[in-house]
Amino acid sequence: MKPFLSKDFLLSNPTAAALYHEHAAGMPIIDYHCHLDPQQIYEDVRFENITQVWLGGDHYKWRIMRSNGVPEYYITGDAPDREKFQKFAEALPRAIGNPMYHWCHLELKNFFGYEGTLSGDTAEEVWNLCNEKLADPSFSARGLIKMSNVAMIGTTDDPCSDLKWHKLIAEEGRMETRVCPSFRPDPAVNIHKAGFAAYIEKLSAASGIKIEHACDVARALSQRIDYFDAVGCRASDHGLDYIMYQEASEAEIEAAFQKGMAGQIVTGREAEGYQTYILSHCAREYARHGWAMQLHFSCVRNTNTNMFRLLGADTGFDGIAVTDSSANLHRFMDSLNTEGQLPKTIIYSLNPADDQWIDTLLGCHQSDEIPGKIQHGSAWWFNDNKVGMINQMTSLGNLGILGNFIGMLTDSRSFLSYARHEYFRRILCDLIGTWVENGEYPADMKFLGSLVEDICTNNAKRYFNL
Amino acid sequence: MKPFLSKDFLLSNPTAAALYHEHAAGMPIIDYHCHLDPQQIYEDVRFENITQVWLGGDHYKWRIMRSNGVPEYYITGDAPDREKFQKFAEALPRAIGNPMYHWCHLELKNFFGYEGTLSGDTAEEVWNLCNEKLADPSFSARGLIKMSNVAMIGTTDDPCSDLKWHKLIAEEGRMETRVCPSFRPDPAVNIHKAGFAAYIEKLSAASGIKIEHACDVARALSQRIDYFDAVGCRASDHGLDYIMYQEASEAEIEAAFQKGMAGQIVTGREAEGYQTYILSHCAREYARHGWAMQLHFSCVRNTNTNMFRLLGADTGFDGIAVTDSSANLHRFMDSLNTEGQLPKTIIYSLNPADDQWIDTLLGCHQSDEIPGKIQHGSAWWFNDNKVGMINQMTSLGNLGILGNFIGMLTDSRSFLSYARHEYFRRILCDLIGTWVENGEYPADMKFLGSLVEDICTNNAKRYFNL
Amino acid sequence: MKPFLSKDFLLSNPTAAALYHEHAAGMPIIDYHCHLDPQQIYEDVRFENITQVWLGGDHYKWRIMRSNGVPEYYITGDAPDREKFQKFAEALPRAIGNPMYHWCHLELKNFFGYEGTLSGDTAEEVWNLCNEKLADPSFSARGLIKMSNVAMIGTTDDPCSDLKWHKLIAEEGRMETRVCPSFRPDPAVNIHKAGFAAYIEKLSAASGIKIEHACDVARALSQRIDYFDAVGCRASDHGLDYIMYQEASEAEIEAAFQKGMAGQIVTGREAEGYQTYILSHCAREYARHGWAMQLHFSCVRNTNTNMFRLLGADTGFDGIAVTDSSANLHRFMDSLNTEGQLPKTIIYSLNPADDQWIDTLLGCHQSDEIPGKIQHGSAWWFNDNKVGMINQMTSLGNLGILGNFIGMLTDSRSFLSYARHEYFRRILCDLIGTWVENGEYPADMKFLGSLVEDICTNNAKRYFNL
Repeated sequence: MKPFLSKDFLLSNPTAAALYHEHAAGMPIIDYHCHLDPQQIYEDVRFENITQVWLGGDHYKWRIMRSNGVPEYYITGDAPDREKFQKFAEALPRAIGNPMYHWCHLELKNFFGYEGTLSGDTAEEVWNLCNEKLADPSFSARGLIKMSNVAMIGTTDDPCSDLKWHKLIAEEGRMETRVCPSFRPDPAVNIHKAGFAAYIEKLSAASGIKIEHACDVARALSQRIDYFDAVGCRASDHGLDYIMYQEASEAEIEAAFQKGMAGQIVTGREAEGYQTYILSHCAREYARHGWAMQLHFSCVRNTNTNMFRLLGADTGFDGIAVTDSSANLHRFMDSLNTEGQLPKTIIYSLNPADDQWIDTLLGCHQSDEIPGKIQHGSAWWFNDNKVGMINQMTSLGNLGILGNFIGMLTDSRSFLSYARHEYFRRILCDLIGTWVENGEYPADMKFLGSLVEDICTNNAKRYFNL
Repeated sequence: MKPFLSKDFLLSNPTAAALYHEHAAGMPIIDYHCHLDPQQIYEDVRFENITQVWLGGDHYKWRIMRSNGVPEYYITGDAPDREKFQKFAEALPRAIGNPMYHWCHLELKNFFGYEGTLSGDTAEEVWNLCNEKLADPSFSARGLIKMSNVAMIGTTDDPCSDLKWHKLIAEEGRMETRVCPSFRPDPAVNIHKAGFAAYIEKLSAASGIKIEHACDVARALSQRIDYFDAVGCRASDHGLDYIMYQEASEAEIEAAFQKGMAGQIVTGREAEGYQTYILSHCAREYARHGWAMQLHFSCVRNTNTNMFRLLGADTGFDGIAVTDSSANLHRFMDSLNTEGQLPKTIIYSLNPADDQWIDTLLGCHQSDEIPGKIQHGSAWWFNDNKVGMINQMTSLGNLGILGNFIGMLTDSRSFLSYARHEYFRRILCDLIGTWVENGEYPADMKFLGSLVEDICTNNAKRYFNL
Repeated sequence: MKPFLSKDFLLSNPTAAALYHEHAAGMPIIDYHCHLDPQQIYEDVRFENITQVWLGGDHYKWRIMRSNGVPEYYITGDAPDREKFQKFAEALPRAIGNPMYHWCHLELKNFFGYEGTLSGDTAEEVWNLCNEKLADPSFSARGLIKMSNVAMIGTTDDPCSDLKWHKLIAEEGRMETRVCPSFRPDPAVNIHKAGFAAYIEKLSAASGIKIEHACDVARALSQRIDYFDAVGCRASDHGLDYIMYQEASEAEIEAAFQKGMAGQIVTGREAEGYQTYILSHCAREYARHGWAMQLHFSCVRNTNTNMFRLLGADTGFDGIAVTDSSANLHRFMDSLNTEGQLPKTIIYSLNPADDQWIDTLLGCHQSDEIPGKIQHGSAWWFNDNKVGMINQMTSLGNLGILGNFIGMLTDSRSFLSYARHEYFRRILCDLIGTWVENGEYPADMKFLGSLVEDICTNNAKRYFNL
């Protein structure tokens, strides 16, 4: 029996271990998509206790607690931090098979040097140990980033942002890690959701462009894209419920826009016409700037009305949706490609049943601009677990070129989440190592080592022009 | 090589074996959802031969025979029992990889002490052995239940039933096993299917409520729910082709009802309005009584018209359907939760491609009433096999809390099917044991043992207030 | 560690190895569905170099190159053959986990005796070795077929074809391999696609039947089916985007046909009415002749407009589609069965998420005409890889009778692709061998050996009346 979380955690054979320890482990992290707060990075924020770091904003952990019948008082309510931690510690051991169990223990081990296991019984010990460490200045935001060997951080930013903190970080010039903004224009796309008109006004102010027509939204977004590009942006991100593609006339698009601005109900088809127009416009701009376009879809959000009223969005009440996005995604990408304006594209579905059609789609739209121009994003959100990652990489391997994969991102709000890159890398090395040990790939360790290093770091570096 | 069906069948390592033999094997069975006939239990029925027990009503076995080209004469026709058994015995060995192969041999071993393998060659020997045993009074219905250490049986009952046999069993007070009815009001929901009006009349008679309007159906169901509750019911069950959620006005619901009663064609949308009304009404009643609501969906039924005309429903001509039930299920549960009237809910899809979205849905609707209030039901029907169970539990582990799972049920019509609980438990212990042996979970056998016992029995006991 | 591509490649235990080497390896190949050119077979064509054999028409390999950023000049363009080969050799090692890696090395080993691995570094060596061998007369089309122990080849043919080459091969009587045509009437079904009217005229000419009405198409197809049957056809093949089933009146069908002939736009529903009519008509004819009907679906084709304009169809720009074909497929098959005219049917979906519902559908429509009358086709196209094959066979095993499976086909355009039968057989034997070694099936090697031989050859032989 292998001890829990040993040196060779998740590495089931010598080839896997060699690939991980000699090649993957030391590679710098390119965390090209996360939700870290650039202000916290700039201000090098520090944390009082482990509850603040772990339970302050992590809705993955809140779900675990809710699934264990913990009252909301101990989750997002006013319970003292120590009591919240206790409730989480009691829930965690029951979550056997959940990646949360591994993430937490990797973080406890890597950052805090804790070798035990967290439970209700050990919560006090872990609480004291972590808080003691967190009191050390080296455990600041930047300290944790430095410990984690992070070469690049891609935050997620509102097109209206002035990117003040990114600029300050750059001007200051003291971080070895590059902190790049990413462009996420969802509120300008979501014509059918509350707050659209208000957002468009905000966008008008930020861009200095008077927005009276749909085409003005496009112009304002172009202005913001130029601005983001100047501050070092390399990627955009679109969070879509599903992929739409609805060709519409200029008049139809404009009519939909005016209805949206007036707060009137926009039909699905009207919304899609406007959305297709804006998405296509943005995509062309991304292509022009050499950015990557990230498309996330097959989500259902804010499914619990009571909790949404209480806590707002992104609080743990989202789920995997079933959508048929395959036909529209082909059409969207083909329409751009036909014009010669398809940008680098990274595709993520929250529904793992979509893995295979996505991997066949990649091959339909590749080009000689760059190997692996069209990417299947790393197992995302709910799929960011051992099985999800193995399935995503196996499918990608079967249907495309795994060696050109740009690899892992955390999508996280926490400075401790870099442990998930370790998790990914161990799983990657075990997948490849197992193929080699089984005689399914030659044991050419030099080539395999460089392939692993490519997937860990080099492919992403090249892909994002870093 | 491991011998077939040995003591450590399906247990691939010492941790798995220890968990099974020391913890799982001895736990009482809570078979909270099956199709046993309470009359047969009360009358303690006996069986003349193995064909009667195995092939009398088991459409899983009929499918195996049909897939082997066996004429219907030997399946549901007039062939002598011995000949039917021969045809089944000849088909079985070709069904390598089918859970039927394992179930049959577990039953032969556990109940009849047969250590060989069934085939055309051994059919005579097995026939004689089984029939000899079946002649023994200890092989009666109650005898088989007793041998299987069953603490609770949840039958499936028509709301119109007077539950005579459940009451007689309780009055007699001689069974150690609790036999509870379950409430299955499908015919009152299926407004679009033949027989609706006739059923509503039957319901009217059973409830003593004159049914002239849709709201009377609701009142009558409430009456029956109260009645069932008094006789010990703890759960309801809904067999739906797909999950619908269609808000409709009182007038629309009433209009649909009147059309249904008049035998007129009801459109999909009309039917869904009525169905949503009835389902929501029932759900509120379940919440009030502390019952669990079981929702089964993604089925296509009676797909072979010739055979349906010949044999009727539930004869082996159903299949997995592709439905998009995710959005509606969220809406249905949210609407109840918003009113504070969402009951405990157990969700089963027949399509295993739905596993992941279901497991993310659970976490959106949990509460502090009880840990694991919303459950993903055990791998159901066609998925009730090794791969199906591993996938269901792995997905649940990845996305929820496996430790709060209420575990296995047979869904069976046979008194021998309790062997499937053993099958499930071995697979559960192997899954957990393998994680431990691979260093993915600490080898805390005391905790793991109690976790396994919870999944085998204790969680269900608590969930159904037994 | 097992060496790459050793004698026991993919065979992980002694039972698997024994089943493969003693039973599977020597069985003749029934390649009942491929795209070989009967003219090339008759003329016993020879190849100048490995690029011609491998890269001449194989869009699987083109996808690999495109995914590696190779310019089209080296793929389908005018680059010299040696340079094309170099680019492919450089891309291949990065495609770790892709079946292409295995297929290529199996072909290099089996046909050319090459024991090394192909990469940019070894491309020159492999180029020279292969071309030298190809210069040998034994490496002609027929030579390669003979080397591969092929008992039957089922080509894919246009209903308008006069089957000249099949007839010449038969008349000549010198091949031990039976070369049968297959009937693929897609252009007569695709009323909504360009070229419909032109094809109908061609069909009229080929059949000698004047086609003025929809019913004339049916008559003409009947004539061609009779003709194909006389030349030895045993199977038809339908490539459908999705499965449709739309009952329509004679007048509606005729109206749709007239619109299609006039080049007018046909609505989805109109097209489906005509298509259902033609498919049903063909199916009845197949039943009458004892043919097998192959249904392929869930594809999206020609998704890259630029490349379609440049290269046409079948050039590597197709993908897996998401379709809901389950309900319609049940209805289509049931409607035929109700008339007593359901032919033997083989079902293939390109979307592996469809595996489970297909396997439950089989059992709904079997009959005593032949064991396994309704088949789930071998993992097809993009799924033709280790994982895809394991999943297809595991699902079939779980839900049907694996022992009645008619097994592998290449679907290939290349005379070297018979190595894929070896690939399939190794995976089959490993799947079964592993069950046996794990104690999940008795180690009855005589029975298992015959079961493996059935799946490799005998079942297909019986199924196609060979």
